[in-house]
Amino acid sequence: MAANLIVFVPLAGLASIAIALVLYGYVIKRDPGTEKMQQIAAAIKEGAHAFLQRQYQTLAIFGAIMALLLFIFLPKPFFNGAHLAMAYVIGATCSGMAGYFGMEVAVRANVRTAQAARNDLTKGFSVAFYAGGVMGLLTVGLALFGMGVLYYVLGDPEAILGYSFGASSIALFAKAGGGIYTKTADISADLVGKVEIGIPEDDPRNPAVIADNVGDNVGDVAGMGADLFDSYVASIVAAMILGAAAQHFYGGIAAILPMLYAAAGIMASIVGMFFVRVGERGNPGASLNRGTYATTAIFAALTFLITYMNDVDMGIWYATMAGLVSGVIIGLISDYYTSIDRPPAQRTAEAAQTGAAISVITGLSYGFLSVLLPLIGIAIASIVAYAFAGLYGIGIAAVGMLSITGMIVSADAYGPISDNAKGIAEQSGLGEEVIAVADKLDAAGNTAKAITKGFAIGAAGLTVIALLAAYAEIVDIQVFNLMDPFVLAGALIGIAMPPVFSAMIMLGVGRNAHRMIEEIRRQFNTIPGIMEGKNKPDYAKCVDIATKGAIRELIPPSLLTIIMTLGVGFVLGKNALGGYLAGSIFTGLVFALFMANGGGLLDNAKKYIEEGHYGGKGSDAHKNAVVGDTVGDPLKDSAGPSLNTMITVMSLVASIFAPLFALFSLLG
Amino acid sequence: MAANLIVFVPLAGLASIAIALVLYGYVIKRDPGTEKMQQIAAAIKEGAHAFLQRQYQTLAIFGAIMALLLFIFLPKPFFNGAHLAMAYVIGATCSGMAGYFGMEVAVRANVRTAQAARNDLTKGFSVAFYAGGVMGLLTVGLALFGMGVLYYVLGDPEAILGYSFGASSIALFAKAGGGIYTKTADISADLVGKVEIGIPEDDPRNPAVIADNVGDNVGDVAGMGADLFDSYVASIVAAMILGAAAQHFYGGIAAILPMLYAAAGIMASIVGMFFVRVGERGNPGASLNRGTYATTAIFAALTFLITYMNDVDMGIWYATMAGLVSGVIIGLISDYYTSIDRPPAQRTAEAAQTGAAISVITGLSYGFLSVLLPLIGIAIASIVAYAFAGLYGIGIAAVGMLSITGMIVSADAYGPISDNAKGIAEQSGLGEEVIAVADKLDAAGNTAKAITKGFAIGAAGLTVIALLAAYAEIVDIQVFNLMDPFVLAGALIGIAMPPVFSAMIMLGVGRNAHRMIEEIRRQFNTIPGIMEGKNKPDYAKCVDIATKGAIRELIPPSLLTIIMTLGVGFVLGKNALGGYLAGSIFTGLVFALFMANGGGLLDNAKKYIEEGHYGGKGSDAHKNAVVGDTVGDPLKDSAGPSLNTMITVMSLVASIFAPLFALFSLLG
Repeated sequence: MAANLIVFVPLAGLASIAIALVLYGYVIKRDPGTEKMQQIAAAIKEGAHAFLQRQYQTLAIFGAIMALLLFIFLPKPFFNGAHLAMAYVIGATCSGMAGYFGMEVAVRANVRTAQAARNDLTKGFSVAFYAGGVMGLLTVGLALFGMGVLYYVLGDPEAILGYSFGASSIALFAKAGGGIYTKTADISADLVGKVEIGIPEDDPRNPAVIADNVGDNVGDVAGMGADLFDSYVASIVAAMILGAAAQHFYGGIAAILPMLYAAAGIMASIVGMFFVRVGERGNPGASLNRGTYATTAIFAALTFLITYMNDVDMGIWYATMAGLVSGVIIGLISDYYTSIDRPPAQRTAEAAQTGAAISVITGLSYGFLSVLLPLIGIAIASIVAYAFAGLYGIGIAAVGMLSITGMIVSADAYGPISDNAKGIAEQSGLGEEVIAVADKLDAAGNTAKAITKGFAIGAAGLTVIALLAAYAEIVDIQVFNLMDPFVLAGALIGIAMPPVFSAMIMLGVGRNAHRMIEEIRRQFNTIPGIMEGKNKPDYAKCVDIATKGAIRELIPPSLLTIIMTLGVGFVLGKNALGGYLAGSIFTGLVFALFMANGGGLLDNAKKYIEEGHYGGKGSDAHKNAVVGDTVGDPLKDSAGPSLNTMITVMSLVASIFAPLFALFSLLG
Repeated sequence: MAANLIVFVPLAGLASIAIALVLYGYVIKRDPGTEKMQQIAAAIKEGAHAFLQRQYQTLAIFGAIMALLLFIFLPKPFFNGAHLAMAYVIGATCSGMAGYFGMEVAVRANVRTAQAARNDLTKGFSVAFYAGGVMGLLTVGLALFGMGVLYYVLGDPEAILGYSFGASSIALFAKAGGGIYTKTADISADLVGKVEIGIPEDDPRNPAVIADNVGDNVGDVAGMGADLFDSYVASIVAAMILGAAAQHFYGGIAAILPMLYAAAGIMASIVGMFFVRVGERGNPGASLNRGTYATTAIFAALTFLITYMNDVDMGIWYATMAGLVSGVIIGLISDYYTSIDRPPAQRTAEAAQTGAAISVITGLSYGFLSVLLPLIGIAIASIVAYAFAGLYGIGIAAVGMLSITGMIVSADAYGPISDNAKGIAEQSGLGEEVIAVADKLDAAGNTAKAITKGFAIGAAGLTVIALLAAYAEIVDIQVFNLMDPFVLAGALIGIAMPPVFSAMIMLGVGRNAHRMIEEIRRQFNTIPGIMEGKNKPDYAKCVDIATKGAIRELIPPSLLTIIMTLGVGFVLGKNALGGYLAGSIFTGLVFALFMANGGGLLDNAKKYIEEGHYGGKGSDAHKNAVVGDTVGDPLKDSAGPSLNTMITVMSLVASIFAPLFALFSLLG
């Protein structure tokens, strides 16, 4: 029975891709607006292409070298390097395709959303959300299709590790590179435009305005998609490896159940999308949440049926539910800490009256505070999942949280698309009313983003714990003893990695922004008539600086991640590497939560003041809050979101090269 | 032989106390300066007394309850609660006495240092350093005397856990309370005085100026002394427990060797102080470092002799040296990351040209980067120490690093004393030349502080690892397996504690500063003639606000520390508690290093600009760097330094209450 079921996995993937194409057809047929709007959209599209092209070139070289290394250093017949290399290339390709096509639709949907918003909220919402849906369904569809086919051909969960590693490599570059790009453009555009020159956001006279819009797409759409593609695949692979190890207890179905659950998640996401509708006076944010809740409920029902009908131990299903419930709770906690209606953001806004520094300290402090409850949540989910189904339970709990990725990505990609639509509306002078509608669409995206971000971090937390367990399974170690000095030493080095990686990303943003700010100032100073709108600024130059800089700055942290992991393995051995992974998980979770929530609430503190509190826009409090927001920006949009991917890459490198560490390590 | 040697331990303590008294006599006989200087000094003394008095009252209540709890819940004849309670009270008293008398001499030495600086640098330096020496020698003298007598009477290392716990309780209050106090006063005085009103630092017209000076004493002198007293005692106790467990291998001397090493460290510190001399044109910073190096060398020689002559395994001595060498290296790394002459501080200053937010991001990023090498250093020290002498080796390595505490505290307490001397010189208008001398003395203190802080964090790192091992020994667990869901869950909760504790302290500073800023503004607005110096501001009111607020704000984080530890123990059991301790050690180290170095380099970035770079004082870059410095201040002076103590308290609570968790825990 189990063997027959596997065929549903690539089929579900195909179904998802097919529906994505239908939605794409819907979006592309909408009216692309006035000529001016199309011009702006074309510039954004061009910039996004330029970035992706350059990034994929770099990635192709990196990927080819990596595949070659796997092939050479894990030779047949001793290791399955050939399989790994092949799976690696396929994984990287699938992830790259999801990102590429997702962005293709996003840069077409933004202008169409803006145009539709000229009619009413409902139409604008539909375009943006269905475009997000293309991205969401492509992400999970391609991921599951590729993985399903590979497993069907190879029949070995460990060989799919290569697929996951390929996806993670793309994700690391996409998140880190996109994160650096988007904040470079955002900070530079704001600092020169808003602060120095005093022109509004998204003003077409600002040379960085197109780069800023491009950044939303390459960072928030392509980057986020690659990130969730990566977590999604990693959680399934880890659970499959743990399931294969638990076959004696649960039967052969344990190894493929994670893929079946994922297929159920895809179906649930597709159905869930029908629940996302918004009336003329409706609330887009509530509508997005309704879709998420519906998807969750359908997923729970479907997986119950799969589990029950295949006569599988129901403990596995309970473990999945533990993951799902804790995911929702962590999302709600993130919402509390970042929401504009709650004390953390409001008190940070209040503190901005006293000074910029106090506001930053307050925001960072609430960010620190915000880690406690989610971590307790993950701890409880781990214990409950383990109680029901052992380490396999933790793996399947992560799958449970990530199975609704299709819906999550759809709701998430909606955000930057409507943000861009707002930008285009402003730049093409569509008038106050349209901008107000676009603003409403954008605001709904921000709330959805905070919740899904919390959800994604929680899911990633369980995933990396499952990956650690999978690593333990692969190297055949049942015990990572903290009292073993090698495990301890590994952990001490591992805990340093997330802060160091974050620092490298943020310093990259700083250096890149510095270059770009000089260029923006140069244009304002040397292009005659730029302020009167008589002469157009050189948008392409800014896009180019952001692109080149982002690619340059993402390489050192990416290499560090891989080299340190191999270094610990080859010098200190496989026990130490377990400690190292655990250590990086620990600080990785703390930093990811702190950065996402701290950055989010600093952003909303600024928005709270802009709503008219404490003097409103232009007041001293507002200026101080802008400083806070700018500090929070690279935390929440550059460094923080890359950490999950970084730890996933580390875990996969450790698992894949484990046979070599077993053969050789200096001290281990 | 071993039993006879123990008598030297309290004797070394007494010798240290005696020399402290001689130095005190030297300091107190110096000229206390003009009447105006004495008035200011009296105000500082009064404020410091007020704070200590209130803090000790709160502590007395807390301590009495704690001792009672130990007595009741760990009753004879099953447990040694009576011994623990007695040891607790003695430990708290000794630590409190060291802090109290250290501050007594500090508040007398500041004015005398200022007066001596009117003659020349050499004289000023001597007064400040010998006053620091009183604090340093009292700290180690009282610590070792109390511990030695207790051990002589009780003969059981575990009973001395109570002594250590008593010391830690004081330290937690002193560090957290002092840290909140000092930054409340500092930030408030700067924000209203320097930024809003535009008067210089330490201007007597500022109502918060006395509170600011008091803060240097209660935070940097009393707080720092209590902190090192605590680490010093904890490292010795942990090593004694591990030594007692390793007696079958090393013989009976293993349990008392840590105290003998500590006694050698006291002797080395006393001799090392004679190397601290500075000529008329000499460099006070180099002089302080010379003392530290001399002490280190003498300590190495003395412990070699002790080890060799008692026929103890030389591996133990090698382990000690591993600790000592890594401590010095970590200190040098901290120096690199914080020094005004190095890229991290200078690039942060450069970034301040672009904006306050970029400067903060850059500073925080370098702070994140700075954790890598020290953590690798601690990892190597752990492996080397373990290789030479097992877990006992890690304990004795920590003792090795902390044995020169006498010298460290002396060099450290020198800093705030010369800082206060500078303040008094400015407030009493002693003229540019004297202020320049005082400035030179103060600058030397800052460098010494950065190095010793790095050293202290490294030492605390090894100490808390040793405490974890001691806990494992007490609960008789050889393995904390990260793949055990309870250990993992404990770790996930443990890693949240340092950021949450930091956040509570920093939010406390923010709230307290808010109250104080209102008061300073009120005084400037309502006291007629305050700006012309015709009417004196109400200094006492500001001192009172800072005092009350600090005490109020330190209670929640302190209670949280103890309650969460007991909660994890009683709910999840002793395995989970091991994971919890390990988790808190991990993020505790990362945050302590990040906060100390990040805060330090943001401070020096500002100073670098004040030296005349990037536009110098008053430039936009300077204003931005001031924001960075203000963000860094509570990191480096309030939250960061409290983390070591917090983890020590957690470890001791876990060890002391371990018998109860073994009897009862909900899920464990």
